[in-house]
Amino acid sequence: MHPKNNDILRNYVITTENAIDNIFSSSIAPKTSVSEAMKYSLDAGGKRIRPSLVMEFCRVISGDYKKSINAAVAIEMIHTFSLIHDDLPCMDDDDFRRGKPSCHKKFGEAIALLAGDALENLAFRVIISSDYDDKTKSCLISEISDATAKMIDGQVRDLSFLERTDISEDDLLEMYSLKTCALIECSAVMGCICGGADKNELMLAREYAHNLGLAFQIRDDILDVIGDEKELGKPIGSDADNNKTTIVSVLGIEKASELAKKYSDNALNKLDSFKNNDFLKDLTKLLLERYK
Amino acid sequence: MHPKNNDILRNYVITTENAIDNIFSSSIAPKTSVSEAMKYSLDAGGKRIRPSLVMEFCRVISGDYKKSINAAVAIEMIHTFSLIHDDLPCMDDDDFRRGKPSCHKKFGEAIALLAGDALENLAFRVIISSDYDDKTKSCLISEISDATAKMIDGQVRDLSFLERTDISEDDLLEMYSLKTCALIECSAVMGCICGGADKNELMLAREYAHNLGLAFQIRDDILDVIGDEKELGKPIGSDADNNKTTIVSVLGIEKASELAKKYSDNALNKLDSFKNNDFLKDLTKLLLERYK
Repeated sequence: MHPKNNDILRNYVITTENAIDNIFSSSIAPKTSVSEAMKYSLDAGGKRIRPSLVMEFCRVISGDYKKSINAAVAIEMIHTFSLIHDDLPCMDDDDFRRGKPSCHKKFGEAIALLAGDALENLAFRVIISSDYDDKTKSCLISEISDATAKMIDGQVRDLSFLERTDISEDDLLEMYSLKTCALIECSAVMGCICGGADKNELMLAREYAHNLGLAFQIRDDILDVIGDEKELGKPIGSDADNNKTTIVSVLGIEKASELAKKYSDNALNKLDSFKNNDFLKDLTKLLLERYK
Repeated sequence: MHPKNNDILRNYVITTENAIDNIFSSSIAPKTSVSEAMKYSLDAGGKRIRPSLVMEFCRVISGDYKKSINAAVAIEMIHTFSLIHDDLPCMDDDDFRRGKPSCHKKFGEAIALLAGDALENLAFRVIISSDYDDKTKSCLISEISDATAKMIDGQVRDLSFLERTDISEDDLLEMYSLKTCALIECSAVMGCICGGADKNELMLAREYAHNLGLAFQIRDDILDVIGDEKELGKPIGSDADNNKTTIVSVLGIEKASELAKKYSDNALNKLDSFKNNDFLKDLTKLLLERYK
C-alpha cells in the first residue's frame, strides 16, 4: 500500500477506536454490568475494514469522512456482536480471536451472549442518538437491519453446510454473499448515504463491495490453509479439522486464488466510476494480497 | 375482568398474532433458514401484555389503536428474543416455555441463538419498514433501544445475584426495574408516541408502567412458589431449586404480596389522569391477581 494511503487507513482505524471510546464514556452506552465485555471485544483490534469503507465512501462522495463516523462505528458493532456469538461453544467454539481469548473464554458464556445482544442493540442506538436528520437515520437503520438479517441467514446456512457433503461452488458463493458480503456492502452504502450520494453511486458502491466481500472471504479460506498462525492470531487448518467445505476444499488453492483475483478485479473495475478512487483501489489490492 | 374488556384484550392478542403472521409473509421478514425458529417462539403464546399496552395507550390517547400495531409487534419481538436467549443452557437452562419445548430444545442451541439475534434485529426492521413518519420512527427506535439496553443490564445483574447471598430488597427492585419494567415502560410510552401524546402524558404512562412492571414481577416470583405447573406451563419452585434470591425469599409470601399490591395501587392511581382508563384499570387488577 502507498504510504499516503497507509496513513489514511491508520487514521480511519484511530478514528474508529476513538469514537468507540467516546461512545462508551457517553450516555449512549452508560456503564452497565456488561460494558466491560462489550468493550473488550470491540477493542480486540481487527482490521477495521468495515468502518474504513464507510468513512472512505463518504469522503469519496462528499470530500469529508467525519459525518459518517457514527455509521462507521455502528457497523463495527454489528460485526463484533456477530464474532462474539460466532465464537460461542454452540457455534464455532473458538477459544481465540485475534490472538486474545474470545469473549466467552474471558467473561463466561452468559456474559458473552448478553454482550453480543447488547452490541447488536447499541449499533442502532448509536445511529439514533447521532445528529443525522431523521430521514438519514431511517435510511441507515434500514440498511443495517437488512444487512444484519442477511448476515444471520448466512451464518445459519454455514452451519447447515456442516451436515452436508454435496455443497457446490454456487452454494458457497451464495452463503458468502449473505454471511460476509452483506455487512461489507452495507458499509459502502452507508458511507454513500452519509455523503449524499445519488442512486447510481449507491448501486455502484454496492456492486464494488459485493465483489470485494467475495474476494475477501475467499482469501480468508485460503489463509486458513496457507496462513501463519501468529499473523492471523488464530490456529490455521481449522476448516479442514472441522471437515468444513470451503471454496478451497471445492476448487483447490490455485483455482480459488484465481476466483479471488477475478472478484477483486471486478471490484476494481467498479471503482473506475468514482473520482478520488486511489485509496479504495489500494485497499482492494491489499485485501487480496493480505496474510492476516 | 369485565367481559367487554376481556373482548378488547382478546382483540389485541389476535391483532398481534395476525400482524406477526403478516410480517412473516412480507419482505420485512423474508423466509430464511432461521424463520421457522423465530416464528415458533413468537407463536408460543404468552399473554401479549406488552403489545396490548402499546395498543391500548395509543387508543386511550388518540381513540385508534391501529396505528400502533407495528410498535406493538416490535416490542413483542424484543421480549421473545430475550426469552429465547434466557432459556439457553448458559443462562437459565430452561427446557420448557409456556408448556412447549424451549427454542433450543426444539431447534438446537445454535439456531436458537441466531433466532434470538434475528428477532432483536427484526424489531428494528419492523419499525423502520412501517409507514410512520421519520421523526416517529426515530422516537420509537430510541425508546426500544434504550429499553433493550436496560433489559440486558437487568439480566446481567440477575445472573450476578446468583453468586451473592447479601442481596437486599432494594437490589432486587432495581434489577426488576431494568429486567422487567424497562420493556413494559417502553410499551406504554410507544403507544403514547403513536397516539401523539404530550410530554406529561408520556411521563404518567411511564410511571404507570413502571409500577405495573414491579407488581407484575413480584407476582411472578410469588407464582413460582404458589403457582400451578399446568397453568404456568413451566415447573414451579425453580427459583428455590436454583437458590435464587427473589423478593419472596427476602420478604416472605405475605409481605411480597403486600408490596405487589402497593405497586399495583400506585399504577392504578397514575391511571386516574387518563380518560377512558377502564380497560387499563381492569388489566392492572388482572395482572396482580393472575395465576399464570
